[in-house]
Amino acid sequence: MVKTIEYIDGKIRLIDQTKLPLVKEWIICEDYLQIAESIKKMHIRGAPAIGVAAAYGMALAAQNFRTQNINDFLKEIEKASMVLRESRPTAVNLFWAVERMVKLANESEIDCIEEIRKTMLEEAKKIEEEDANICRKIGEIGSEIIPAKATILTHCNAGALATADYGTALGVIRSAHKQGKDIHVFVDETRPYLQGARLTAWELMEEGINISLITDNMAGHFMSRGMIDIILVGADRISSNGDVANKIGTYSVAVLAKENQIPFYSVAPISTFDITLKAGYEIPIEERNPEEVTHIFGIQIAPTGVKVRNPSFDVTPNRYISGIITERGIIRPPYEENIRKVVC
Amino acid sequence: MVKTIEYIDGKIRLIDQTKLPLVKEWIICEDYLQIAESIKKMHIRGAPAIGVAAAYGMALAAQNFRTQNINDFLKEIEKASMVLRESRPTAVNLFWAVERMVKLANESEIDCIEEIRKTMLEEAKKIEEEDANICRKIGEIGSEIIPAKATILTHCNAGALATADYGTALGVIRSAHKQGKDIHVFVDETRPYLQGARLTAWELMEEGINISLITDNMAGHFMSRGMIDIILVGADRISSNGDVANKIGTYSVAVLAKENQIPFYSVAPISTFDITLKAGYEIPIEERNPEEVTHIFGIQIAPTGVKVRNPSFDVTPNRYISGIITERGIIRPPYEENIRKVVC
Repeated sequence: MVKTIEYIDGKIRLIDQTKLPLVKEWIICEDYLQIAESIKKMHIRGAPAIGVAAAYGMALAAQNFRTQNINDFLKEIEKASMVLRESRPTAVNLFWAVERMVKLANESEIDCIEEIRKTMLEEAKKIEEEDANICRKIGEIGSEIIPAKATILTHCNAGALATADYGTALGVIRSAHKQGKDIHVFVDETRPYLQGARLTAWELMEEGINISLITDNMAGHFMSRGMIDIILVGADRISSNGDVANKIGTYSVAVLAKENQIPFYSVAPISTFDITLKAGYEIPIEERNPEEVTHIFGIQIAPTGVKVRNPSFDVTPNRYISGIITERGIIRPPYEENIRKVVC
Repeated sequence: MVKTIEYIDGKIRLIDQTKLPLVKEWIICEDYLQIAESIKKMHIRGAPAIGVAAAYGMALAAQNFRTQNINDFLKEIEKASMVLRESRPTAVNLFWAVERMVKLANESEIDCIEEIRKTMLEEAKKIEEEDANICRKIGEIGSEIIPAKATILTHCNAGALATADYGTALGVIRSAHKQGKDIHVFVDETRPYLQGARLTAWELMEEGINISLITDNMAGHFMSRGMIDIILVGADRISSNGDVANKIGTYSVAVLAKENQIPFYSVAPISTFDITLKAGYEIPIEERNPEEVTHIFGIQIAPTGVKVRNPSFDVTPNRYISGIITERGIIRPPYEENIRKVVC
């Protein structure tokens, strides 16, 4: 498995996820502006992974800004945090990681800037390491609800490529597979960006897990024929009442799951919760470039000049969700109460 | 608007729908084998259109088989009917049209084969003409339920390209637009074959109708945000209880519509009903080539060797359907009873 993101000699190396799986190309980011650009262009994507990338972006900002003046330094840190925050609006892990890095810089009692730089780099590495460990913990906890023989449906990519390593929804699948369970995964291709066809299919095939790739509009058909036992997806932001913002199409999968009485789980680290929000309608939904819909790998598939809508996420209301699998356990309804207990 | 299918000087000319909208190329079929091949390869698709194509295929079989022996002639007709019947399994209009042509040949009281040939060609032309007229009638009837200002969602292509002319679901939209109603259409791109992005978007833009192209997995999101007033889709086969087989993804749209209390209509000519079937589970579902999923216009979008499922249709149970719009009126529940009244 390739590494999603890596710190190497003062630079950050990302696998370019826009080109996988047929082309393996890496991108080297030397400053926070390049990190922000890579998040925006989805060279790196997946809520936890962009959190890690943003933390490294902050570490690069600290490293590259040559000054002895602590106020100037903190101003630069603030500036970098603003740019990184603006790279993508929906996933909250990005804001969480940036916030954590800003706080560290500001609350440092050391007045030696070189020391702060070091601490910030260590913190970014820690965020990466924590994320990998959290995913393994999530995998362990989540695998308990997977039957000995199970057909699982997943949407988008909540895998190693969406995190520092191992994955959230795919982490649960990996753990169940490693325990010797008989796993078959239906993979939604996940238009427009095809994270399912390009990334999830590839990750699971590398792991030797049995999969069937389908287009998004086939998921309901297979559910209605009794062929899906359980559904696992990731999350980009979860409000305090348990509404889940995730990749566009997740809401449809959840409604179809409920209609067909199939358990539907969201899998995410605690950093995905945004308890400042009452409900999902407050989560900002990013609308991306129409070309993601009208062109596939540069090939035009629709009439020239066609009007397009391209929301990148949707919100699944808590009533469709059987549980939220986190590193602190599986949160079940009533969500407001149980999320408060686990997260706060 | 280009013509879907045309009889010209003893040959059949089809617009190649696999290449639209960016390339306009016609295919000339000189015999029934080429017609069967074009149906199989989806140069021509859409339940009513393949009915018309199959009728012309039968007329070509009659025209091309040079014999004076009536028994040999009828054997050839039988052979052609078998080949055409096997071209695609789900849409019933194909079988209906072939049956009508076989019956005509067999029941002809004329013993002059040249006369039978003429009658069969006239019958095929009549099926084409009837289909165009039926679509206009359906458009007129269906447009009555479209509000003065409406946002309509449609899936796949139930347009002029899916029929001899005018379309079924898109016929209703065309009629409403012509009546001066303020129409906006959300067009599902309809993976894997992209009939929505390639054909429906193009047809509606040519007509000057306001559209928004979306990926299939966005439909639920826009429904949940209250942005869709009504849903219109076609049908490939309708069983006697009102279950509708239609393009893969239709079932998901219908479930999402019900969940969001949006009226969901199937639009189809009477020839789409198969009253020999009790319910939708009896309808055979075609599974097509995996390459339709793994490649788009020849570009590979998934890992080499990935396993794929590719059902081309699904079945929407009657409980999700507000009504079926036909040339004989709108059929509403209880379907079993009301379909019998209208169809038999």
